[in-house]
Amino acid sequence: MKFGGSSVADADRVKNVAKRVIAKKKAGNRVVVVVSAPGDMTDDLVAMAEGVTDNPNPREMDMLLATGEQVSIALLTMAIEHKGVKAVSLTGPQAGILADRFHTRARITSIRPTGILDQLKKGRVVIVAGFQGLNPNQDITTLGRGGSDLTAVALAAALKADVCEIYTDVKGVYTTDPRVEPEAQKIDQITFDEMLELAGAGAQVMQPRSIEVGKKYNIDIHVRSSFTEDEGTLITAEVPRMEDVVVSGVAYDPKQAKITLRSLSDRPGVAGKIFGSLAEEGINVDMIIQSAPESGKNDISFTVARGDAKRATKILGDISASLKAEQVVVDDQVVKVSIVGVGMRSHPGVAAKLFQSLADAGVNIDMISTSEIKVACMVRESDGPRAVRVVHKAFGLDKPRGKTR
Amino acid sequence: MKFGGSSVADADRVKNVAKRVIAKKKAGNRVVVVVSAPGDMTDDLVAMAEGVTDNPNPREMDMLLATGEQVSIALLTMAIEHKGVKAVSLTGPQAGILADRFHTRARITSIRPTGILDQLKKGRVVIVAGFQGLNPNQDITTLGRGGSDLTAVALAAALKADVCEIYTDVKGVYTTDPRVEPEAQKIDQITFDEMLELAGAGAQVMQPRSIEVGKKYNIDIHVRSSFTEDEGTLITAEVPRMEDVVVSGVAYDPKQAKITLRSLSDRPGVAGKIFGSLAEEGINVDMIIQSAPESGKNDISFTVARGDAKRATKILGDISASLKAEQVVVDDQVVKVSIVGVGMRSHPGVAAKLFQSLADAGVNIDMISTSEIKVACMVRESDGPRAVRVVHKAFGLDKPRGKTR
Repeated sequence: MKFGGSSVADADRVKNVAKRVIAKKKAGNRVVVVVSAPGDMTDDLVAMAEGVTDNPNPREMDMLLATGEQVSIALLTMAIEHKGVKAVSLTGPQAGILADRFHTRARITSIRPTGILDQLKKGRVVIVAGFQGLNPNQDITTLGRGGSDLTAVALAAALKADVCEIYTDVKGVYTTDPRVEPEAQKIDQITFDEMLELAGAGAQVMQPRSIEVGKKYNIDIHVRSSFTEDEGTLITAEVPRMEDVVVSGVAYDPKQAKITLRSLSDRPGVAGKIFGSLAEEGINVDMIIQSAPESGKNDISFTVARGDAKRATKILGDISASLKAEQVVVDDQVVKVSIVGVGMRSHPGVAAKLFQSLADAGVNIDMISTSEIKVACMVRESDGPRAVRVVHKAFGLDKPRGKTR
Repeated sequence: MKFGGSSVADADRVKNVAKRVIAKKKAGNRVVVVVSAPGDMTDDLVAMAEGVTDNPNPREMDMLLATGEQVSIALLTMAIEHKGVKAVSLTGPQAGILADRFHTRARITSIRPTGILDQLKKGRVVIVAGFQGLNPNQDITTLGRGGSDLTAVALAAALKADVCEIYTDVKGVYTTDPRVEPEAQKIDQITFDEMLELAGAGAQVMQPRSIEVGKKYNIDIHVRSSFTEDEGTLITAEVPRMEDVVVSGVAYDPKQAKITLRSLSDRPGVAGKIFGSLAEEGINVDMIIQSAPESGKNDISFTVARGDAKRATKILGDISASLKAEQVVVDDQVVKVSIVGVGMRSHPGVAAKLFQSLADAGVNIDMISTSEIKVACMVRESDGPRAVRVVHKAFGLDKPRGKTR
């Protein structure tokens, strides 16, 4: 069971989490719980660091931030023991979560779960601090964005758990962002691959890293509400479906930017130079379009996360002389709308239906990319929400679906 | 260098501490710094625990409270590195501070300073979390009241430091409590033994545990202000003195209670039973007076800290039948005034001068106890502050003293 920061933001919520954990334990399960820092504590700690320096040492930042989860595990364990159920808290290092040397964004290298297993054998509920591990220097390190989910899924894999339950403030994964389309429906089951595409395309429920680990070790992930008993969304390897349900959801990424290099010399190595330079600086490029060459010149357009646009432009400016590009143009008024679904490739009508529905609504498509289970369209920012709604409706996602099992 | 919570309560104070540490380092010293939790953070954490349970598991309480110091070490290290000086933070466990199993009030069992020494060799300032250690279960434990001072003095001993500097919000140790006697003077030097008597008698500058460690390992302790560059008070093994300076200070403990057992049977084992029962419950008894027996009965009076009076009375009530005491009387309107000074015993006039000065002022003495370096008087609470002032004046402590070295 993994609970996020809003689930442990105050004493009443901590007690509520304790109640759910105890119920799970009393139902006969061996339970390991992962928690994040309470409410806004991580933000508060960051603000404290900013008070003393504008460029904090990353090792010390991890030393600071790791206290947030340590507070949560202690409070939750107290609340569980208060109800007469045996529990014990473990920091990431104590739980045997080993990570690499990259402070503030470490990757888990391995898990030595003997400490947790010992405590489970003693009949205790084990409460583990999310987001943190021990690096080869014996220093505390943090796992970066989505780190607590990652801790939970990786622990579930190391412990060979039956399921990893991610408790959150939403009811599960939706067919699209409910803030954009109020008719969005909760999805009962979805495959790892579909979820990866949805997450990568801007669905904020879970970070791709955790889903990748779930897929790799085949750990079912159940995303569900901290506040109700209702079933949420099960992310799993394979989902039995009715044949007509091909599209699982519509992903919406409202923060994209398109960068165009005009009149490049059409010679070998140019694309390699561009995308190599961006990759070196950790900038992910999404869609790429290259125009047909005309008198030895062509254009290349590609998209990046809007937050990376400035940095990307600077990098291209630095190498523009060697590229012999005449112009670098940035368009930060674009958004991405994608449909995601396993088996899409074998239903040729799917992409056509997508393009037709957008055309009927007068939405112009700027760029297109496809994968085995996804078709993504770049459109104007002003058309974005409307595009999501027409596509969502075109694929019947606004209708409650029958249970698929 | 040890800095208390008020010295790191906000960003500006953390930067100020960083500046002092850097100056010490640049003067050619190898520097280890111990810090407490910032400002009210420990109180805030305790309040969070009280929000979920009225009886927190002590192991979890330590897990919770240890985060306070961890925040301080990270922030201070960032502030030092911000100024271009190499520094590294270590939690108590990382610093090799090993403690026993008694959560929330552990004793340090040993220190393995290899981690600190390695970092010093690399030219770094080492910032260590006070108040915490690692117990034999590999759990984080805290050292109880005054724990950060203890960490500092014990580390100084393990590292064979030249001096342990305790930075505080007062300028040093005073001849008496300046809130009671504004003419109180800062003491330049004082022996461990005198300081132990002053601390035990209610002087709040340092807990006796730290001074005991300083004495045992002969580590000079320099108590000084975080806010000025002035020298404070050096606590050391032996102080060269002018012959006429015998009394170093007047200690004042305004929170005492006297408990009297009336008409006890005068038979062997009664006193053992009384004080044994109190000791079992961790109640410290200070002065004891037993009246001369009369027709096989006598009275026993003793003093305890006022906060323990209720519990002590209950314990005596529980065993009163077997004691055959006719009455248990509690007087919680008493305070203790003591003079402290090495060599007092060889100056027979000292005690007489104390009693005479109190008599001249019309202060009645209820009980007296003496040691090698102390004479203590129990007086009425209403007479307390006046008693401190007349005694302080009688021994000339209100006059600035010449430097003794």
